[in-house]
Amino acid sequence: MSEQNLVTAAILVIGDEILSGRTKDKNIGYMAEYMTAVGIDLREVRVVPDIEEEIVTAAKALSGRYTYLFTTGGIGPTHDDITADCIAKAAGVGIDIDERAVALLRERFPNPDDLNEARLRMARIPHGAELIDNPISRAPGFMIQNIIVMAGVPSIMQAMFENVLPRLKTGAKLQSQSIDSGGRPEGAYATALGQVQKQFSDVIIGSYPSFDGKRFQNQIVVRARDPHVLAAAAEAVQAMLDTLPPA
Amino acid sequence: MSEQNLVTAAILVIGDEILSGRTKDKNIGYMAEYMTAVGIDLREVRVVPDIEEEIVTAAKALSGRYTYLFTTGGIGPTHDDITADCIAKAAGVGIDIDERAVALLRERFPNPDDLNEARLRMARIPHGAELIDNPISRAPGFMIQNIIVMAGVPSIMQAMFENVLPRLKTGAKLQSQSIDSGGRPEGAYATALGQVQKQFSDVIIGSYPSFDGKRFQNQIVVRARDPHVLAAAAEAVQAMLDTLPPA
Repeated sequence: MSEQNLVTAAILVIGDEILSGRTKDKNIGYMAEYMTAVGIDLREVRVVPDIEEEIVTAAKALSGRYTYLFTTGGIGPTHDDITADCIAKAAGVGIDIDERAVALLRERFPNPDDLNEARLRMARIPHGAELIDNPISRAPGFMIQNIIVMAGVPSIMQAMFENVLPRLKTGAKLQSQSIDSGGRPEGAYATALGQVQKQFSDVIIGSYPSFDGKRFQNQIVVRARDPHVLAAAAEAVQAMLDTLPPA
Repeated sequence: MSEQNLVTAAILVIGDEILSGRTKDKNIGYMAEYMTAVGIDLREVRVVPDIEEEIVTAAKALSGRYTYLFTTGGIGPTHDDITADCIAKAAGVGIDIDERAVALLRERFPNPDDLNEARLRMARIPHGAELIDNPISRAPGFMIQNIIVMAGVPSIMQAMFENVLPRLKTGAKLQSQSIDSGGRPEGAYATALGQVQKQFSDVIIGSYPSFDGKRFQNQIVVRARDPHVLAAAAEAVQAMLDTLPPA
């Protein structure tokens, strides 16, 4: 599989409230699963505070390294919402009130008195950005260069994510198959599993324990882009397990 | 508040399974909340794949920048568990089978045949590290320099985290107070809230919307280390809200 057919991504979560533990992030898991399903490889996630220098530095590093950078959080009307300005800086472009965004906000705030200075901050969009529709509260997200800027509120983020996906490149999907270890502990199959991994260099094999308070349940997950290779590797894992005594 | 009284931290989550979306992380939110409660400021989180170069680079960057780096994941017996070796590399120390860790594993695997090569991988501990007890499955975590290495399975991570905390420095706690906006939308108070923020430079004020599918509920969160300053800022926020018409 050539690297040319790969589409990679990072997520940058902008939010003091996540770092303080006050809010539990729900966006990373949602996007991770969705990206895998459509053929975008999520390679890195960062969570940074609402501090300009931190956001700009992380946005530059991640947008330079991956096909896409998705950000969540910090695009509301209050003083702590600084994402749009930071992303403009990271992208090296100017930012201003965008008439397309103002028009969207007018749909929500038809009375001119309600479209006050703070709400107009939500219409600050970097020059050259495409807007991303927000069906819930109208204030749009945007895409500038390879950076996709979305709200932090999960239902709005999800709507924006679905709206922007058709505009993005996707690559060959990394497909996966889970094989239950049949109650066998990881230590019973670890060496043999390492040997299977060596036979299949185009396959990513991981072993994932979970613990229900009494015992471990282990899942071996095989991932590959080629379905034939995936099936062969999964078969080899199952055959390896079958040579071991039952749990 | 001087910076000397601050204790900062980062979390590095090591796990293909989080990036693929197969597993939803529960450790970040748990640790974030706990750190805030004990007086450790969580400043950054990164999630990276099970790739040596990625883990080593992130561990060096984060341990160099913050008082502590906490890692989760990748310390089991299978071939994809490479955290201990990567952290030894990041810390610039050697790594080997550690007899203290072997003794702990013997408690779980008294039959010498069961303590096989793969399980002995869990006794690979960087030179000079202190062990962190794992009451659930014995294989220990460890602390080397300012890096704390823990399991990814949440119940084990939580036990390790509680075990290591008494050994760590903690700083002045960042206390917080939430003020409900009383149904007022963010845009109605954003400008006035920004003015309150300007009056209280030692206070971090954030506004956090949530959406239940029908309407927004907004919480204004005021955070400060000095309880008198916190109370004064919270009072100023409430007084500001009281000048606005009810929702």
